[in-house]
Amino acid sequence: MALFTPMLRHSALTPVFSDEGTIQGMLTFESALARAQAECGVIPEAALSAIVTQCQVAKLNVATLAQAAASAGNLAIPLVRQLTANMKRQDEQAARYVHWGATSQDAIDTGMVLQLREALAVAGQLLSRLIAGLVQKVREHRHSVMPGRTWMQHALPITFGLKLAGTLDALLRWQSRLSELRPRVLVLQFGGAAGTLASLKEQGQQVSRALARELSLAEADTPWHTQRDRLLEAAAWFAGVSSTLGKFASDFALLMQTEVAEVAEPVAEGRGGSSAMPHKRNPVACAAVLNAVTRIPGLMATLYASQLQQHERALGGWQAEWETLPELITLTGGVLQTSLELITTMQVDTRKMQANLGITHGLIMAEAVTLELARQLGRQPAHHLVEQLCHRARDEHLPLERLLKQPPKIASCLSPQQIDRLLDPQQATGCADRFISQVLSRAERQSETLL
Amino acid sequence: MALFTPMLRHSALTPVFSDEGTIQGMLTFESALARAQAECGVIPEAALSAIVTQCQVAKLNVATLAQAAASAGNLAIPLVRQLTANMKRQDEQAARYVHWGATSQDAIDTGMVLQLREALAVAGQLLSRLIAGLVQKVREHRHSVMPGRTWMQHALPITFGLKLAGTLDALLRWQSRLSELRPRVLVLQFGGAAGTLASLKEQGQQVSRALARELSLAEADTPWHTQRDRLLEAAAWFAGVSSTLGKFASDFALLMQTEVAEVAEPVAEGRGGSSAMPHKRNPVACAAVLNAVTRIPGLMATLYASQLQQHERALGGWQAEWETLPELITLTGGVLQTSLELITTMQVDTRKMQANLGITHGLIMAEAVTLELARQLGRQPAHHLVEQLCHRARDEHLPLERLLKQPPKIASCLSPQQIDRLLDPQQATGCADRFISQVLSRAERQSETLL
Amino acid sequence: MALFTPMLRHSALTPVFSDEGTIQGMLTFESALARAQAECGVIPEAALSAIVTQCQVAKLNVATLAQAAASAGNLAIPLVRQLTANMKRQDEQAARYVHWGATSQDAIDTGMVLQLREALAVAGQLLSRLIAGLVQKVREHRHSVMPGRTWMQHALPITFGLKLAGTLDALLRWQSRLSELRPRVLVLQFGGAAGTLASLKEQGQQVSRALARELSLAEADTPWHTQRDRLLEAAAWFAGVSSTLGKFASDFALLMQTEVAEVAEPVAEGRGGSSAMPHKRNPVACAAVLNAVTRIPGLMATLYASQLQQHERALGGWQAEWETLPELITLTGGVLQTSLELITTMQVDTRKMQANLGITHGLIMAEAVTLELARQLGRQPAHHLVEQLCHRARDEHLPLERLLKQPPKIASCLSPQQIDRLLDPQQATGCADRFISQVLSRAERQSETLL
Amino acid sequence: MALFTPMLRHSALTPVFSDEGTIQGMLTFESALARAQAECGVIPEAALSAIVTQCQVAKLNVATLAQAAASAGNLAIPLVRQLTANMKRQDEQAARYVHWGATSQDAIDTGMVLQLREALAVAGQLLSRLIAGLVQKVREHRHSVMPGRTWMQHALPITFGLKLAGTLDALLRWQSRLSELRPRVLVLQFGGAAGTLASLKEQGQQVSRALARELSLAEADTPWHTQRDRLLEAAAWFAGVSSTLGKFASDFALLMQTEVAEVAEPVAEGRGGSSAMPHKRNPVACAAVLNAVTRIPGLMATLYASQLQQHERALGGWQAEWETLPELITLTGGVLQTSLELITTMQVDTRKMQANLGITHGLIMAEAVTLELARQLGRQPAHHLVEQLCHRARDEHLPLERLLKQPPKIASCLSPQQIDRLLDPQQATGCADRFISQVLSRAERQSETLL
Repeated sequence: MALFTPMLRHSALTPVFSDEGTIQGMLTFESALARAQAECGVIPEAALSAIVTQCQVAKLNVATLAQAAASAGNLAIPLVRQLTANMKRQDEQAARYVHWGATSQDAIDTGMVLQLREALAVAGQLLSRLIAGLVQKVREHRHSVMPGRTWMQHALPITFGLKLAGTLDALLRWQSRLSELRPRVLVLQFGGAAGTLASLKEQGQQVSRALARELSLAEADTPWHTQRDRLLEAAAWFAGVSSTLGKFASDFALLMQTEVAEVAEPVAEGRGGSSAMPHKRNPVACAAVLNAVTRIPGLMATLYASQLQQHERALGGWQAEWETLPELITLTGGVLQTSLELITTMQVDTRKMQANLGITHGLIMAEAVTLELARQLGRQPAHHLVEQLCHRARDEHLPLERLLKQPPKIASCLSPQQIDRLLDPQQATGCADRFISQVLSRAERQSETLL
Repeated sequence: MALFTPMLRHSALTPVFSDEGTIQGMLTFESALARAQAECGVIPEAALSAIVTQCQVAKLNVATLAQAAASAGNLAIPLVRQLTANMKRQDEQAARYVHWGATSQDAIDTGMVLQLREALAVAGQLLSRLIAGLVQKVREHRHSVMPGRTWMQHALPITFGLKLAGTLDALLRWQSRLSELRPRVLVLQFGGAAGTLASLKEQGQQVSRALARELSLAEADTPWHTQRDRLLEAAAWFAGVSSTLGKFASDFALLMQTEVAEVAEPVAEGRGGSSAMPHKRNPVACAAVLNAVTRIPGLMATLYASQLQQHERALGGWQAEWETLPELITLTGGVLQTSLELITTMQVDTRKMQANLGITHGLIMAEAVTLELARQLGRQPAHHLVEQLCHRARDEHLPLERLLKQPPKIASCLSPQQIDRLLDPQQATGCADRFISQVLSRAERQSETLL
Repeated sequence: MALFTPMLRHSALTPVFSDEGTIQGMLTFESALARAQAECGVIPEAALSAIVTQCQVAKLNVATLAQAAASAGNLAIPLVRQLTANMKRQDEQAARYVHWGATSQDAIDTGMVLQLREALAVAGQLLSRLIAGLVQKVREHRHSVMPGRTWMQHALPITFGLKLAGTLDALLRWQSRLSELRPRVLVLQFGGAAGTLASLKEQGQQVSRALARELSLAEADTPWHTQRDRLLEAAAWFAGVSSTLGKFASDFALLMQTEVAEVAEPVAEGRGGSSAMPHKRNPVACAAVLNAVTRIPGLMATLYASQLQQHERALGGWQAEWETLPELITLTGGVLQTSLELITTMQVDTRKMQANLGITHGLIMAEAVTLELARQLGRQPAHHLVEQLCHRARDEHLPLERLLKQPPKIASCLSPQQIDRLLDPQQATGCADRFISQVLSRAERQSETLL
Repeated sequence: MALFTPMLRHSALTPVFSDEGTIQGMLTFESALARAQAECGVIPEAALSAIVTQCQVAKLNVATLAQAAASAGNLAIPLVRQLTANMKRQDEQAARYVHWGATSQDAIDTGMVLQLREALAVAGQLLSRLIAGLVQKVREHRHSVMPGRTWMQHALPITFGLKLAGTLDALLRWQSRLSELRPRVLVLQFGGAAGTLASLKEQGQQVSRALARELSLAEADTPWHTQRDRLLEAAAWFAGVSSTLGKFASDFALLMQTEVAEVAEPVAEGRGGSSAMPHKRNPVACAAVLNAVTRIPGLMATLYASQLQQHERALGGWQAEWETLPELITLTGGVLQTSLELITTMQVDTRKMQANLGITHGLIMAEAVTLELARQLGRQPAHHLVEQLCHRARDEHLPLERLLKQPPKIASCLSPQQIDRLLDPQQATGCADRFISQVLSRAERQSETLL
């Protein structure tokens, strides 16, 4: 549905998988095939330029093609037919040599790989920009102390920089994986009707090599018409990136809740309002990301299910990839684009972070006190003692500080000054800064090596 | 992608979920709301006709709307805005009363329910036609004996009529379920901003009642902004119908394999050929069905995941329905349409069915012999004895008949004539005919009651 | 893994699907089959009591059976073998008649249906108790006003009773669906090796009828060895119930966040603490429900995928049900049990609800003011005017009340007293009470008719 | 359910994820933590040996632990409690220092990583053996010509060696991926309550380093309590391996169909029989693999869904991994083990392969003839001409050879001898042999480098 494309798929990945993009992928295969075969003497040199000239999406009738694909069973058959018909009007002789020795799936799969190459390039760039954006925000909020939350409850203080660094760290891993998978995924599909290239006889190897060179793709050891692990791996990369950013959007929406209000999406005319409520400021970027990300598990389930492709070319599983893979990739494009905007424009309210640290009147520092006491009382007695005081603090709405200063058992271990120091969240961010440094170093190293 | 729409979604369900269909659903809500509110005196009668006049998709700019939805977060906000702007040019006064007291989700969800009503009607009709087609084919092949297959191995003879009756039986159940779910699913969404209709104060009930009447929808006991079980139930119906037909297509493709060749898709110009192999006759209808059906589990996973909608109106889960539900429904439309064509035009080769019964030289009748022997030798000894002969028959490529007539142990129980009779598949279809009668009766009863 | 059973599956549904329960299901089939066949004269009366005596799980070696199932391919084959061997020692003659004319899948599927019957009964009771618990809580919190939240932001006031009523309403629908699906799902599986009952010849119908009567199951029109929509429907019911309760748990955890704190799980020794933090009070019941519910979409995806069962008995799809269906059902049992405990013991802090209504200093009532102004200024101008004031209120931390009383444009429409009244959340719960009444009435009606 | 474990999970991966294995994982973390902290002077040297002595699963009560985990919310809390209680009886002083400064999730996640390390090692060995087995079978059937099948129809001749080489090629890629993911996945989890290691103050880094060294795990740049991409990547590897082997099992079952009968599972007492049909020989190994593989997409969907973990430690998503990840891995273990047995013991009937090549009386060679004619007639006219003859051959059950020798148009291009040669499948396997060589070389290289 085009209606939701601006909301969900407004990245440069979307045009790559337009109808025209898909057809152009196949046409690029067909023209490169002609080039390779002319070079190897399989087809006459004379046929070459005629073929190449016709291999442009603008010369085809896309609607007719889509209609014919319904009864042909795939897009390549009517594409070759239109191509041949067009050429006949121009050069009857050359028309013979279109798609010579190839099978539909060679054109469709290689076309998909060409789209995938562009998609990985664009996504890689978006990812790099996102990483750069995060690096900056991590630096900016390196010392912004806020409540860390576990099981959706206040736990201990952390810094907003550390929270962002966790996402940054994961994205750096996705960046590494991208460079590993590229050479494995970007390979030519060329096997002919049953994966033996029988149609080309002794020239098969030579043509295959030339074709791969033409397209700047690697050659596969065997045709992979029904071995789809490469596409699965590429899909899993997009799905994984989306999932990491989905976690970020989910946290963001939680932090933006009215009662929490530590971050906010930017204000803009027409953005995030309500048709009924004038005070509303909805996290629309988060919603768009979470919309897409909610669908990722199902899309991946489909791609896993479609791995069981029968024999030499499949019935059902292969075909199920045609819309699913572009859907997954363009949704991830939207997730990347929206997250980039979100991260670079988000509003952060460090005062509210401070204020939230205080709303439990010290409970958030209970672990620190316990550990100090534990050195003298033992871990479990100390835990038990502080736990009782925490319950009382909560039930009677009293500051933990006051309660801690009463029991002689505690007083014998800790002075009031020590208690005050232990209850200060600003001093309690542990290794957060070191963790941040480690991630920032990696980001720096990686930005040099992965360019 | 439009490219695959003729292949995968060529049913009357597709236009229901076009971009225009979706917008019209919301507009129908808005004009019915105006009618209901004029009737109840909530808005001035004078505003009514102006609103109703504007509520036509042709008067809106769909592309602008889609673009604005990206920052607004949903389609209804820019729709109301365009509507109001358009009305202002016509009747400043009336423009005040568009969308009065409603929330975006009221319009979006009710619009979806209206689409769903049409979708269920169209799908119900397609299903009825499919059932009628199957009834005829079951009758036609009531006595066409063929190998029954279990674990993808020959088991015992069945009839092709029985095989079809199994699918028919399942489709009759889906028909029953459809009539059960309709009243539960086809309900108005009307709760205002947080599901209390607070905006309408004491008039809420009256307007709600009038609005439901206007739209011929039932009223819900409570707004269901984040209780999505109704949509899930409807989606599960479509998914279930697809799955039943997917099983049929999967069987069909198996029966059409070159070595089996008991059925075939019809021959037609440009249908099911190969770009490389002139002898190819691919099951393109089965492929289209299996393509769609491979995606059903993933789409349902998404809808289950999207059930966890937060609080009074959700962030992520609700939004994930917007493309997923139409995708599931229009794919099922394609499955229904393609299956209808497949069932009414399939070629059945009853001679090949006969021939296949014979390819194991009698093994397919081994159970019948065993059971007869078991009456005298006991079940396990008889099973063991016949099993040995079956192994020999397979290993030495001998007819089972000959081997059965040799051992004195068998001869003392069964005469050669009895053996011959036991080995005749035509006499061995057990209750198949009775089962068929039962299903046909139900089909008849149901066609009367469910109209 | 048994380790997580107390956490995730501590309901009465778990023993139904124990290894012993599964085997007993098949044994109940076998003994009922013997009874039916003795009644019909298919097996000698003398064999009957011997068979019935042996059909007890305690007389079988479960470990041996599990081991043998690995090479046999299913549980019924080694079960029949053990049964026969045991009987031989007792009554050689009777041993012949075990499992007469049936196929493995008849025993396995009918056994599963018997388990399912018990599971639906137990789940139905848990659901009734849950409904009763909710009815009480809805009544109790009928007038507990709290912030309604949309897009995870404050929207308008609602009542906690209404929130609970939404869940109650959905559960009442699941209760209706349960009564609809029961007769369709609780049917005998009895078709013999290929679904024709050929082994029983002319006695097939009579035995089938008697067997169904013995087991108090309905007869199917055709064997459903590869038509699995009934199981899918039952599974979807469990999955749906889980999803509805997952939404409740998700909301509960959100309401229990430190900053929100409107509800809490009960305090108990050893419950919801942390190994490190003495102040922690984790929502462990919610976590258990969400753990289970996160897995529901994947489990349903598996069951949808397994619908495509080949021919007369399947390879892969059928087998995939064996662990998946019990997993789904016992997880749902845990969800029901945990939710029942959660709902009956939850702590509700109505004062915190009140306090949270106030934290935006009136913004939550902005819609009410707007609508009142809209009657005189028009909807969009009023919306725009109040929206500006809301932004100012938020940015300058001022109460909306004060800002509303300044502009002459507003003063000319609303008196200060009117503004005060409009800003009172207690008076702004709209139709909440009526919605609650409707759900409570339905609950009452349903508790009478569905018993 | 233990009932299906011998069928589905009979590999050495299953004990790794037993209840005891899981607990031992956590205990190994706790004892290594004590060692690291003693080394760094965080806990007294005297406490060390007492802790290490207690960290044995045999000293704990697993049932009590499981029960307590239900209210604690995770396994680590009651584990630490039991451990401490046990130690107190031995050494009150030392008991204080168990689990010092760590959080539950540190123990649980690191325990899981330790299990994962063993699982990857075992799976890697099984994979190597599978690869070695396939290499041998590829060599053996390098020249076994058989029908290649596309869209489940005969296409062109291939060799069985090439079919096997496709699976081998994919498995070699999984082997490469394994070596890439290992260093990324096998990392320590150590962050304390909120991922800052605040409890250890300035000693955090030192302890973390020592702990990683103790466990021979890498250190993470940041704690990954809610960044789960590493586990996802590992899970995806198992799921991918299963999918590749699922494709093999699916093909195998298709090739074993009664009418095709080119391969078979081995015969063995009690294997693959039927309770009713003595001639049955069911593909039980394939069924076991397909059972498991049908569930992989759903399990992966769950793991993707569980990626959205909130804040610093999550509620629902984390917990959903606990049973899902082991389920996925042990099922894959079963798939690997069963596939290894299947591949090394399968029966291959090369004579039936030959015979099947002939059943279409030459149609399978139609492409070869077409291409030869195309050189002189053009691709489309040649295709059209041969297609007509194919239709006639099929409809009139005539050998294609005879029909090809009739039309003068063909006779003018091809001599009868040429036609005979073109119709010989043995000469028509194209580049199959070269593809095989390429895969075998890669297998050889990889077996050297990846050891």
